[in-house]
Amino acid sequence: MIRTSNLEKSIDFYCDKLGLIEIRRIVNESARFTLIFLCAPDDMIVKNETIKSPLIEITYNWPDENGKKEKLGEGRNFGHLAFSVDNIYNFCERLLKKGVILNRPPRDGYMAFIRSPDNISIEILQKNSPLEISEPWVSMQNTGNW
Amino acid sequence: MIRTSNLEKSIDFYCDKLGLIEIRRIVNESARFTLIFLCAPDDMIVKNETIKSPLIEITYNWPDENGKKEKLGEGRNFGHLAFSVDNIYNFCERLLKKGVILNRPPRDGYMAFIRSPDNISIEILQKNSPLEISEPWVSMQNTGNW
Repeated sequence: MIRTSNLEKSIDFYCDKLGLIEIRRIVNESARFTLIFLCAPDDMIVKNETIKSPLIEITYNWPDENGKKEKLGEGRNFGHLAFSVDNIYNFCERLLKKGVILNRPPRDGYMAFIRSPDNISIEILQKNSPLEISEPWVSMQNTGNW
Repeated sequence: MIRTSNLEKSIDFYCDKLGLIEIRRIVNESARFTLIFLCAPDDMIVKNETIKSPLIEITYNWPDENGKKEKLGEGRNFGHLAFSVDNIYNFCERLLKKGVILNRPPRDGYMAFIRSPDNISIEILQKNSPLEISEPWVSMQNTGNW
């Protein structure tokens, strides 16, 4: 995931200039963000009617109600790597046993965040639907940021 | 590509803890760097004996002869996105026509760098072997950094 400060310029750049293909767009008016998922044309892989290609997620956080825009860094405004797993609880349990801190535990049965040793933010996502909400996950607190 | 300050810790994290697979390792003693390419197990795709999977490149720049280590940022030390293309000269000509600055033109017939509108660094690589070195590319100067 990489962030953008201007969706129109980004689409022009990534699709028109660079030749990537827009696969999916999520516009969330209440949370005020737009996500666009892009695929390189040669990478397009479809299995069982599902796109299995590696995707680049472009995130645009809309200005707030006062028009204040998200401030991006001077360039390398990288978001995170994301991986989906068969069972997020099993996966996170394995991480905990190996000493990894769950900065954001999968309280919702769907999403967790950890950090690499160099602090790269990594998202773990449950494949298909969220798992049933259950202990010990639902009571686990956040640690730091991600 | 993401940078690491400690290869051993990174391999432990990405492979042992996160479950990624090391696909390829390049150790360049004279230029003092190590590159490791990782693949998510479910993403492994092989076509004509070539791995076509999306890969994460981990770069470790060795300390210099005086033991001075590369300084990484406080976390989001992202490197760049990389795409390979059929003909890097045609691709770069198309980019120039669309007003994109070639920060590093493909003088070597193999590699170019541009920036997204938000300054994300993007590498363009020639598929297979480098093209024959030729004008106007070989005389084109760098612009800024990337």
